[in-house]
Amino acid sequence: MDVDGGRRAVLRAAVAGGVGTGLAAAGLAPPAAAAPGGAASGGRGPRIAILLYDGLTALDAVGPYEVLCRVPDASVVTVAKRAGTVRTDTGVLGLVADRALHQVRHADVLLVPGGGDRGVIAAMEDAETVNWVRRLHQRTTWTTSVCTGALILGAAGLLHRVPATTYWASRSYLESTFGAIYTPGRFVESGKIITAAGVSAGIDMALQLAAKLTDDRVAQALQLAVEYDPDPPFDTGSPEKAGPQLQQLALELLEAAAR
Amino acid sequence: MDVDGGRRAVLRAAVAGGVGTGLAAAGLAPPAAAAPGGAASGGRGPRIAILLYDGLTALDAVGPYEVLCRVPDASVVTVAKRAGTVRTDTGVLGLVADRALHQVRHADVLLVPGGGDRGVIAAMEDAETVNWVRRLHQRTTWTTSVCTGALILGAAGLLHRVPATTYWASRSYLESTFGAIYTPGRFVESGKIITAAGVSAGIDMALQLAAKLTDDRVAQALQLAVEYDPDPPFDTGSPEKAGPQLQQLALELLEAAAR
Repeated sequence: MDVDGGRRAVLRAAVAGGVGTGLAAAGLAPPAAAAPGGAASGGRGPRIAILLYDGLTALDAVGPYEVLCRVPDASVVTVAKRAGTVRTDTGVLGLVADRALHQVRHADVLLVPGGGDRGVIAAMEDAETVNWVRRLHQRTTWTTSVCTGALILGAAGLLHRVPATTYWASRSYLESTFGAIYTPGRFVESGKIITAAGVSAGIDMALQLAAKLTDDRVAQALQLAVEYDPDPPFDTGSPEKAGPQLQQLALELLEAAAR
Repeated sequence: MDVDGGRRAVLRAAVAGGVGTGLAAAGLAPPAAAAPGGAASGGRGPRIAILLYDGLTALDAVGPYEVLCRVPDASVVTVAKRAGTVRTDTGVLGLVADRALHQVRHADVLLVPGGGDRGVIAAMEDAETVNWVRRLHQRTTWTTSVCTGALILGAAGLLHRVPATTYWASRSYLESTFGAIYTPGRFVESGKIITAAGVSAGIDMALQLAAKLTDDRVAQALQLAVEYDPDPPFDTGSPEKAGPQLQQLALELLEAAAR
């Protein structure tokens, strides 16, 4: 290793001048100390609860998390049926839920990620999970979903005749099963419900949500904080752009990797 | 709840016709069974090791994971100094490493995510971690980093006079400390080393990597699988687009949320 004393602030090395006035310039107070373990209480900012469950799609939760956890004074908590580890839809990755459902009775923002068939169906059929979503929704400022997380909102009865989106392959299911009004878009806002399209769309939604929770400047800074200047090497990210053959291949790849 | 029998395949509801020919049409064999727990061994496809460490940035790891875990026959394993839970740079989220460093002696693809100052500096200063990165690199097909993960590659001595990128705020640090040649781009390929820019850039890199591990069609299908058709509500995802004031605010927001 050949590192100099500047390593103590590797993230600030490229920025000329000191820091310390940006938050004030944006009209924001210095952040309050958050509770250890990410408890969704105690802060002055929005309390954000992210539902985790076995079989979820990790990026559905982690994309929005990465933006929302840096909203000034926000407290973010991960919540699952039981506190502890959940495994993702591929079985490859474990994420930790710090709280059980019964420990979190209120959130300003509820985020429900999607998952593979197994995980989403189990969540939709689990009365405790669905009742928790419905109960939190009564007092949220924003109730949000990513991908097939919309189906869990649907199972909670929140999407009947509500404009919404979901994973591209689940659009008709969302309409036929829950009576939602499928509406194109990376995310769709309907009153206090915001549904995002599949997986990565949660990042786009979270930036919009950050703007609503604070203001455009903070959301713009958060976009830079996660260096979200997307430039994928292909342009096949929507079913319309990809066409039917890639749609079929995508679903087979999903199924082959599912656990 | 009001759900019909079609819920058993919520992800396939929108696709007309059966599935089962896409992999064959793409010239791919059906996937082999993967080892439980995501062990990076036993499969016929690429063995992919994702380094986790306390203080990492979750999206740096999870963005690429979400793409690469669905490369046909790939086996993905999460690795940390000790197997078990690591906490992210914000302290809010726990990710599970299934293997300790000494348990993973080879990988076809090594992915090193970035993190906040605390986590990256600790990883750079940890001889076991840096030696493991250097040792695996000797036999990898691809050695990759996201964000400040490049600094860990640098600490392992892999980036001297190598064109590379990193998190926008760490560009000059990468050059001055490790002798890398900072090169603009969402990801930069230099021989078998691919470095991605900050956080979300790992998704772009992973799609390119998926194409290298298979072919363009599979990578395009994986882009659709994660519905990566980005459309952020703002256009401030690079420091050049954001300007100095948003740069400063971004760094302050990062610091305020850091644990």
